[in-house]
Amino acid sequence: MTFNKNTRILIVGLGLLGGSYAMALKRRGFTVNAITLDQADVDYATDKGIVDYATTTVEPTLVAEADLVIFALYPHTFVEWLEQHGRLLTRGTVITDVTGVKGGIIPKIEALLPDGVEYIAAHPMAGREVGGVRNADDRIFYGANYIVVPTDRNTPEAIELCEELGWTLGFRYVSKLSPERHDEMIGFLSQLTHCIAVSLMCAKDDPELVRYTGDSFRDLTRIARINDAMWSELFLENQTVLLEEMDRFRKSFDRLYDTIRDGDTAAMRQMMRLSTERRTLFDKP
Amino acid sequence: MTFNKNTRILIVGLGLLGGSYAMALKRRGFTVNAITLDQADVDYATDKGIVDYATTTVEPTLVAEADLVIFALYPHTFVEWLEQHGRLLTRGTVITDVTGVKGGIIPKIEALLPDGVEYIAAHPMAGREVGGVRNADDRIFYGANYIVVPTDRNTPEAIELCEELGWTLGFRYVSKLSPERHDEMIGFLSQLTHCIAVSLMCAKDDPELVRYTGDSFRDLTRIARINDAMWSELFLENQTVLLEEMDRFRKSFDRLYDTIRDGDTAAMRQMMRLSTERRTLFDKP
Repeated sequence: MTFNKNTRILIVGLGLLGGSYAMALKRRGFTVNAITLDQADVDYATDKGIVDYATTTVEPTLVAEADLVIFALYPHTFVEWLEQHGRLLTRGTVITDVTGVKGGIIPKIEALLPDGVEYIAAHPMAGREVGGVRNADDRIFYGANYIVVPTDRNTPEAIELCEELGWTLGFRYVSKLSPERHDEMIGFLSQLTHCIAVSLMCAKDDPELVRYTGDSFRDLTRIARINDAMWSELFLENQTVLLEEMDRFRKSFDRLYDTIRDGDTAAMRQMMRLSTERRTLFDKP
Repeated sequence: MTFNKNTRILIVGLGLLGGSYAMALKRRGFTVNAITLDQADVDYATDKGIVDYATTTVEPTLVAEADLVIFALYPHTFVEWLEQHGRLLTRGTVITDVTGVKGGIIPKIEALLPDGVEYIAAHPMAGREVGGVRNADDRIFYGANYIVVPTDRNTPEAIELCEELGWTLGFRYVSKLSPERHDEMIGFLSQLTHCIAVSLMCAKDDPELVRYTGDSFRDLTRIARINDAMWSELFLENQTVLLEEMDRFRKSFDRLYDTIRDGDTAAMRQMMRLSTERRTLFDKP
């Protein structure tokens, strides 16, 4: 299957990401259909021209005729949807997703697919602190990373199609990682940072803090506004890796604590210089 | 002493903050003199019109004739300067500073002042990841907090003058805190956040991280580029408070860790909701 303007695209789940995918694809001339849970989201997305056609009903022909189905759902809903409706997918269809954790979900999804339907996993590393199709905005993809997560069961064609989808959506970087390596990266870069921000917000109950805050605290806790239903699910999907990364951070934090307790300026400054040196590489180009 | 265009202002230390103070004050029509360590900084600040007059020499008349002396130095340099030159200050002069920690330094400074010279402590909560007068920019004060930190030895006139200085510099909020309360706030909002960012950068050595990073990691570690000489000094100046705040964060982080380890979704989501609720208050108005 080649990816072009005739590719029939179906998005399942019109939330922030599903809506933003639809906007990006429509902007580039694709026809986009969608299935989602709430009639209000169907009406909104249709009125605003975010999709060509949307429905709350899982219409068999809509699913059967799609060449590419993009699942923009929570992990457990993704699995449940395929349990209920997976048999509607037809040979030659490729499905992909937006799930933030891969190792656990990939085998579950593969086990639910009819013969000749291929799942190529992907993780768009983009989001906002607010959810829902009403907050959809495909500019969140600009400058961001799109990670394709193939397994040895994937065909080169599906991998290429998924990469093209990433470029078409407007991502700045499209790369490939194994499920294990993906989950390790995400465990450290994304999940651990959310754990830190949440822990910091929960650490101290002082209504006056907000009056004296500076940008450092604001930046560090931006992601402390968190969708608790989604993130608790993602944390447990990646439990083993995340606990390892949390331990790794704890050790580093304890080391810094000890240098301060011991008044060991040399060791403290060494950590700060390592931190500065590493962080410099992360500045946006 | 009232604060007006005739107030003779002397800045000691033309770094990022001293330079930015000078720019803001000049912009509002004040005459600003400065004493700083390096001739290159004197030349630069004079050439660029950041100050009216600058010198590397501690000229007795320059110090004696100043109505307001602003010390923009590291804590230990501030103390050393007064040990060496404090006697040059004359009755009626008010001095202030930019030191990020207050409880420990205030008594040291007060003990070094001649009779009739008053120290009113202040903390401008503004900065950049880069230092030096060449990076001075008074726009860093816009939207930021300026905290006046009086003790019971201060006169209402000096407190008022210091508040006026904060407004004149362009800060959005000018407030007052006791030294103890100031150090607690700063320990949590600023020092702890820097500890977290540094620890996170030091936690994992993986050159590929930068390829897969998202904005959450970038925002959280922005302050991990840190001036190790200054911050190690500030951490130890506030050692007791900072260790307490680090413990507080550790407890909260450990609590979240346990909910993930135990698969306790309800408790995890409760922390996330508390975090979200509190963080919402910190959005900029």
